Amino acid sequence: MRKLEDLQILIANAVERLEYPAYPAELYEPISYILSLGGKRMRPALLLMACDLFGGDVESALPPALAIEVFHNFTLMHDDIMDNAPIRRGKVTVHEKWNQNVAILSGDVMLIEGYKLMMQVRNDILRQVLDIFNDTAVGVCEGQQLDMTFETSENISIPEYINMIRLKTAVVLGGALKIGALIGNAEQQDADLLSTFGENLGIAFQLQDDILDVYGNPLVFGKQVGGDIISNKKTYLLIKALELVKGSQADDLSQFLASKNFNNAEKVTAVTQIYNNVNVRSYAETEMQVYADKAFEALEKINLPENNKQYLRDFADGLLVREY
Amino acid sequence: MRKLEDLQILIANAVERLEYPAYPAELYEPISYILSLGGKRMRPALLLMACDLFGGDVESALPPALAIEVFHNFTLMHDDIMDNAPIRRGKVTVHEKWNQNVAILSGDVMLIEGYKLMMQVRNDILRQVLDIFNDTAVGVCEGQQLDMTFETSENISIPEYINMIRLKTAVVLGGALKIGALIGNAEQQDADLLSTFGENLGIAFQLQDDILDVYGNPLVFGKQVGGDIISNKKTYLLIKALELVKGSQADDLSQFLASKNFNNAEKVTAVTQIYNNVNVRSYAETEMQVYADKAFEALEKINLPENNKQYLRDFADGLLVREY
Repeated sequence: MRKLEDLQILIANAVERLEYPAYPAELYEPISYILSLGGKRMRPALLLMACDLFGGDVESALPPALAIEVFHNFTLMHDDIMDNAPIRRGKVTVHEKWNQNVAILSGDVMLIEGYKLMMQVRNDILRQVLDIFNDTAVGVCEGQQLDMTFETSENISIPEYINMIRLKTAVVLGGALKIGALIGNAEQQDADLLSTFGENLGIAFQLQDDILDVYGNPLVFGKQVGGDIISNKKTYLLIKALELVKGSQADDLSQFLASKNFNNAEKVTAVTQIYNNVNVRSYAETEMQVYADKAFEALEKINLPENNKQYLRDFADGLLVREY
Repeated sequence: MRKLEDLQILIANAVERLEYPAYPAELYEPISYILSLGGKRMRPALLLMACDLFGGDVESALPPALAIEVFHNFTLMHDDIMDNAPIRRGKVTVHEKWNQNVAILSGDVMLIEGYKLMMQVRNDILRQVLDIFNDTAVGVCEGQQLDMTFETSENISIPEYINMIRLKTAVVLGGALKIGALIGNAEQQDADLLSTFGENLGIAFQLQDDILDVYGNPLVFGKQVGGDIISNKKTYLLIKALELVKGSQADDLSQFLASKNFNNAEKVTAVTQIYNNVNVRSYAETEMQVYADKAFEALEKINLPENNKQYLRDFADGLLVREY
């Protein structure tokens, strides 16, 4: 088994070798630009990992792995327009550097380029791979739409929230793993199980991210602690807290959500205190464990040598037990 | 051979039967909305026509024909954002009725839905059909980008302009015909020839549209005569006139292009007079004939019964000899 870091490097190098036409420049330069901004290349590395797990030829899985990365960056380019984001990975976003029309149209071409890369698989799995890619792509769009809708909605339920993060971030992990497994000649059932593993791991990971945003060690956690609280982001913690709070605490929480004039630090401290009072962290950890368990359950059923299963277990453990 | 009008009706009915999920509503309602606005359904009807020409099963060509129509409407949805267009076929555009983010994301899903429909072909032609669809889709995006770039460019050459209209409008006609031919079990060479026919016919048609905008009979021509002149649209006529005018006429033309305070009717009359003086109409008609000839030349080489060729000739004649 190749190390995940080696697979990530393999992807990074392959991304650098991707070439697009010089003309029209406004259409293709933004594609090279956004792909050059880096990132962990985790999604495509997972595709290669799945292929490797089943003894497949990792090199032959590179184009579809790149398809996943190009697709992912297409969603980032369009999401950045929709979120009005000025910065992506420390650099100006495409719609800021060029303009919005360029970001719309370059993104569209990236989606098509994703299909072109994804088609570079054997004929016997072409249809199935593209079916998975279609479902993944539609899922991500549905997740993004739900995420935007939830921003201005009241009364989002926990199942609705879980469904949103499943679509927006977890489905693509399951899809990448399943495609990699099929390229590696996995049995249908094993490919399905690996997909289930990835999707549930993705949900658990996203829930962990919600918890870390509030309870993470600021020295370890990459983002600003309390960032979700400051921006009123509807995370698992906030949705659960809104379900649980009563009386004066409910009024306090509503006030913090409604007010636009607050001191950030004060708001983070106060809302965290409300979270603590109604014990949302423990609910979130329990929910996260539910999905982690589902992931590990699927993993154990996969027909793979013990060493390969251990590789997957270690990978999942590394992802989920980040330092608090 | 089925009549083109009957194929258009077949498409219109099939479009009505297309169903999308109810949830998330903001993602799928705009798709049903834009598809319900009508249009001539010419592109998908051409796909069916090509299949029928070679004796294929027209019903089995319906999903890929719908793919062409869904793809076309995806480009309209995104183009309308980029052009800031408030109205499409007499109804408010998607980004006006909902908002811009909805139009971006619904458009993205439409492109994926296009692939899902296009995949509904036999396994033996799946890869080739998708290759054609990819090339067509990339071409349309390149054409749209060039069209936007040209708006603010000086010194566009005639070959650059022809290339732009080829990509933006003609490639998809060639692609639709070729896919239809392959579904109808045409030989590779005949499918290629039909594609060449469609692409060149598309260029000729677009050049005719440029001519009609200035010289068309307002009672017959669907749009406002002189509309391109009023909006300074870089058509064949304007680009050619800019190449040809000299001295005081060049100054006059520049002034009309630069000034924002003019009487529309006066501008149309004056610019048309300049066009007449340098004879651009005749240049345009000659250029149009070049592409019409290429189309008919390809047509004659196709291995089809004489009746079917006559059908194609009549179709092309009907498209090109619109009343002036």
